[in-house]
Amino acid sequence: MQVLAASRICIEGIDPEIDGGRFAAKCVAGRPFTVRADIFGEGHDSIRAALLWWRQGSDEIHEEPMEFLVNDRWEGRFTPPENALYRYTLIGWKDDFLGWRKDTAKKIAAGLDVDVEAEMGHRLVANSRDHAPEGEGRAALESLVHATNHGSTEERIEILMNEETLALMTREGRRYGLTRYERDLAVFADREIAAFSAWYEMFPRSAAEGTRHGTFRDVIERLPYVQDLGFDVLYFTPIHPIGRTNRKGRNNTLTPEPGDVGSPYAIGSEDGGHTAIHPELGTIEDFDALVAAARGHGLEIALDIALNASPDHPWIKEHPDWFEWRPDGSIAYAENPPKKYEDIVNFRYYLEDGSPNAPYWEAVRDMFLYWAEHGVLNFRVDNPHTKPFPFWEWVIDEVRARHPGAVFLSEAFTRPKMMKRLAKLGYNQSYSYFTWRNTKAELTEYLSELTQQECRHYMRPNFFVNTPDINPYFLQTSGRAGHRIRLALAATLGGNYGVYNGYEICEAAPIPGKEEYLDSEKYEIRDWDFDREGHIKDDIRLLNGIRRRHAAMRDFTNLEFFDAHDDAVLCYGRFDRASDSYLLFHVLLDPHAGRDFAFDLPLWRFGLPDEASIEVQDAVHGNHFTWHGKEHRLTLDPEDRPYAIWRLIPPGGARD
Amino acid sequence: MQVLAASRICIEGIDPEIDGGRFAAKCVAGRPFTVRADIFGEGHDSIRAALLWWRQGSDEIHEEPMEFLVNDRWEGRFTPPENALYRYTLIGWKDDFLGWRKDTAKKIAAGLDVDVEAEMGHRLVANSRDHAPEGEGRAALESLVHATNHGSTEERIEILMNEETLALMTREGRRYGLTRYERDLAVFADREIAAFSAWYEMFPRSAAEGTRHGTFRDVIERLPYVQDLGFDVLYFTPIHPIGRTNRKGRNNTLTPEPGDVGSPYAIGSEDGGHTAIHPELGTIEDFDALVAAARGHGLEIALDIALNASPDHPWIKEHPDWFEWRPDGSIAYAENPPKKYEDIVNFRYYLEDGSPNAPYWEAVRDMFLYWAEHGVLNFRVDNPHTKPFPFWEWVIDEVRARHPGAVFLSEAFTRPKMMKRLAKLGYNQSYSYFTWRNTKAELTEYLSELTQQECRHYMRPNFFVNTPDINPYFLQTSGRAGHRIRLALAATLGGNYGVYNGYEICEAAPIPGKEEYLDSEKYEIRDWDFDREGHIKDDIRLLNGIRRRHAAMRDFTNLEFFDAHDDAVLCYGRFDRASDSYLLFHVLLDPHAGRDFAFDLPLWRFGLPDEASIEVQDAVHGNHFTWHGKEHRLTLDPEDRPYAIWRLIPPGGARD
Repeated sequence: MQVLAASRICIEGIDPEIDGGRFAAKCVAGRPFTVRADIFGEGHDSIRAALLWWRQGSDEIHEEPMEFLVNDRWEGRFTPPENALYRYTLIGWKDDFLGWRKDTAKKIAAGLDVDVEAEMGHRLVANSRDHAPEGEGRAALESLVHATNHGSTEERIEILMNEETLALMTREGRRYGLTRYERDLAVFADREIAAFSAWYEMFPRSAAEGTRHGTFRDVIERLPYVQDLGFDVLYFTPIHPIGRTNRKGRNNTLTPEPGDVGSPYAIGSEDGGHTAIHPELGTIEDFDALVAAARGHGLEIALDIALNASPDHPWIKEHPDWFEWRPDGSIAYAENPPKKYEDIVNFRYYLEDGSPNAPYWEAVRDMFLYWAEHGVLNFRVDNPHTKPFPFWEWVIDEVRARHPGAVFLSEAFTRPKMMKRLAKLGYNQSYSYFTWRNTKAELTEYLSELTQQECRHYMRPNFFVNTPDINPYFLQTSGRAGHRIRLALAATLGGNYGVYNGYEICEAAPIPGKEEYLDSEKYEIRDWDFDREGHIKDDIRLLNGIRRRHAAMRDFTNLEFFDAHDDAVLCYGRFDRASDSYLLFHVLLDPHAGRDFAFDLPLWRFGLPDEASIEVQDAVHGNHFTWHGKEHRLTLDPEDRPYAIWRLIPPGGARD
Repeated sequence: MQVLAASRICIEGIDPEIDGGRFAAKCVAGRPFTVRADIFGEGHDSIRAALLWWRQGSDEIHEEPMEFLVNDRWEGRFTPPENALYRYTLIGWKDDFLGWRKDTAKKIAAGLDVDVEAEMGHRLVANSRDHAPEGEGRAALESLVHATNHGSTEERIEILMNEETLALMTREGRRYGLTRYERDLAVFADREIAAFSAWYEMFPRSAAEGTRHGTFRDVIERLPYVQDLGFDVLYFTPIHPIGRTNRKGRNNTLTPEPGDVGSPYAIGSEDGGHTAIHPELGTIEDFDALVAAARGHGLEIALDIALNASPDHPWIKEHPDWFEWRPDGSIAYAENPPKKYEDIVNFRYYLEDGSPNAPYWEAVRDMFLYWAEHGVLNFRVDNPHTKPFPFWEWVIDEVRARHPGAVFLSEAFTRPKMMKRLAKLGYNQSYSYFTWRNTKAELTEYLSELTQQECRHYMRPNFFVNTPDINPYFLQTSGRAGHRIRLALAATLGGNYGVYNGYEICEAAPIPGKEEYLDSEKYEIRDWDFDREGHIKDDIRLLNGIRRRHAAMRDFTNLEFFDAHDDAVLCYGRFDRASDSYLLFHVLLDPHAGRDFAFDLPLWRFGLPDEASIEVQDAVHGNHFTWHGKEHRLTLDPEDRPYAIWRLIPPGGARD
């Protein structure tokens, strides 16, 4: 009975609460984190609620008042100051003084006698005083008790009903039926780059002029180029020694020519494994120099972590029990029967008794820590869904305990629930199905899921427009216009997005009939001409600039779709009221034919009538003008103008 | 690491799991209870899953295999045999033998050499044997080990791949990575009457001929009438002594005449309180006789429990600390400022220190137990949302521990989340907004919420068409047709539904402008003529008969809406595949004008093409015929035929 009574106030429907508190939500340090819940007491009691939060491990608990929204829903928020794990929970209580005040106001308005009410109000103050801890608050209550224990009803009511008393009682009054939600929930506050970043992917070995094997020194030469385009993260495919046994030839053949460089995903040779550097790229000192130089250009480095080994990986001899062996004594190659991948073997995660293969797990953890200590905090993980989930939960926690700023990007092009599970387990970012969502219906449905459903609290997609493995059919046939369209979508719909090099010059030659690049850089060094005619570097520079300049771009979940009266035009807004930043987008989805279409300017989102005027800046060309009324027309064209971006400046809004 | 590793298989998205397991779901003893979950392992491992269940407090755990549906979703079910609380949880594991079998089959199909695979299969069997407990299973595995440890690859593969081996390994094979969901969940198995019942409400004092004060003996005379109409539960408004102080007069006036009988909700007089009987109704022996006679007519009695007291309630003198007192020494009347209800006072649920007012809570518990011991298991609770939630959770648990068959019906016409919270806390049934949902859009939206959203697992609405307090505007102006329409909707959309007497003779005279009955039976004895012209007793008998005869009516959640091409016609189905029971309904929503409309016969639900034929029985008139093709027309008419009910008999389906 006592136990139950401690939950007098119902607190339920907490958002976010991931799987009953099993997993942490995600937010960004220094940006507000919002919590909503249904909170109510019996009958028509006046209640109040607050959000409690503290840094994991700290006993300094902060309290933020919650605000009533509608239909028993309350909202509170706090701003986690640091890149760390935080806990939060909710409390609710009956504010009997507030209830008394409302009832008494009604009785006064109805002309009823309130002698008894005056005494009741006085007693509520005295009761609060009796329960207050020693201190300023109690002293203030004591004064109020004295001020209201005599005098006429009018005098007492005047004091009890005034705003100052309300403020004091709200702050210091007794919390009747105080109830704390039964679970403490978790939220991890990331560095902003985990939620808002533009990635540029390259093969360091292609960084040199011509087809000479590139080095980290060559990559340093390329940094100004990547910086100029406006990217935040420079992402390298694996940089480790490449195996020789069963090495793949160009275009993924099984018959390599002498001199073929092999796939960097076949990791490990006599030169070392996952903590070594492919000798032709340079030394660890060269790598350190590159990381430092990148930092100087405002770029963070991301490494590609592929947990598989070439048959030449030193661990196979050093730790045979980290691998699976077949009854005939041969090592188990990766396979997808009847296919067999003979340049790759998999690791063994569990022992025969079902317990973790701890030395291997620890070796992987130490590998991440090794690179973190060399200045790398971004890890794009190859195929994490083929490794056990508990392994990832453990490794990510271990790395994060030492490097809370580590960012893990899950490359799991897999089933939707698996993709989400990896995000719950701790991955900060996730590859997504964006790469294959092209129509208005597909984009609207998928983006609505990502930005509105529960997964928005724990899964942050990184919208890659292409990857070395994926040359999307859409891009193969849509040329420069198609590349500009997909770039605009990725950069303006995504908090995180990425391009693999070659995209800026619209490289899309496929292996016919496949979603793969011809002469894939995975198997050979490419000699890129990034100034090739028809490049779209201006678009990249422009879009990355818009992302950085406009605060509305920083919150992935503020996306709203609006009507554009044409199925080939996607219209959406990114509106951030707190920073007074409002962007409206029109993207043509058809790379082959333009559209002249009508659209509704969402004046209603600013509380404006349909005939209002609003100031607008064309965010692409910079010019300012005024739009009158709700109905407008626009022409988009695949060659000239496949997208338009408008900065809306509602009355009272800031203008630069 | 070890702890994490114990959750190798992901088990999430369990349905039902109410508020992270905080509350029990509801089901019906003797009927299957279905559980679904997302269950998956890393990569493409072959996995299996099972549902574990046991009666609360028992250590006999049952296991039911789960079946894979689609998209990582699995389903299992069990049938709780008794009216009791059950626990359930889920387990999942890797079936490495199944994985081996699939891979080997692919290799065989591709013509690959499978020598090593034969040895691997053999070792998987031997490994299972090593981990099996002593017994028949282990012996069978032992034989299989011997049968496969020699011979040619063909011979070994032949044995290892056969169905018998698969069955044995499925049953007895080692469960790799066995994972148990982290929470044990609860489901309460009710008597079926909690989920499927038709209620008839009356004031016992109006049971006599004329305006004489009725007695329980008079009620016994009325039982055949209620039985003949096909009801399951006979529900009485409060039967306790009625207070005299501030008694209300007819039509809720404050100026009673001598001889006015007062509201039975003003409970308590010198003759007793909540465990006493109003002397004019009879004695406790008369009541026992009535309960027994009702049982003889296939009826259960429901009592109306209103936790408030008249100013004459004996507890006020006996237990002054069970009430709230004002500073001037007067008792606190119920009020909704500036209104004051001077015939009713409220109870006090908490002491000054915030702890429960235990003696009062216990008295209420004992009051429920008193009536249960007098054969009453159905309690319609008046305004439960104005009493503390922890109190209900405690009381219902206490009563249910002794009388698991107790059914609590929450009369909480309140905000939606409060209504649902009461259901989560233990109420078996709930009044709902059905009473005010009249249009096609309203009914479709509300019924979809109730039957498809999470609340279907814990909230069972009881669709009252009217109550002594609610004379819906729709009925006031729609006459006999309106009453037949609302009856048909309640009886065929609801698992539970109810009518308050007078409905069968379409009594709907209002206090003008209000949703209240004129000459409300709450304040006077009514002399009902239930044979009055224009009665709808035939409809009631028919609909209650259809409810009882057709298994599809017993599962509230099997509702499906179909297109009827007219906004004034609601078309829906109740399809129960397990019992081969399929009903299709058309209800006219306009009580003033008929409709001739087209509708689609949902042949697709039986896997039939659009041009198929299907046998049909008109469930209202009994005749059998055949419908050809998907498109049909029907005429409904307010006077002659406001609703139609079709029994569909698909090919192979049963026919009576």
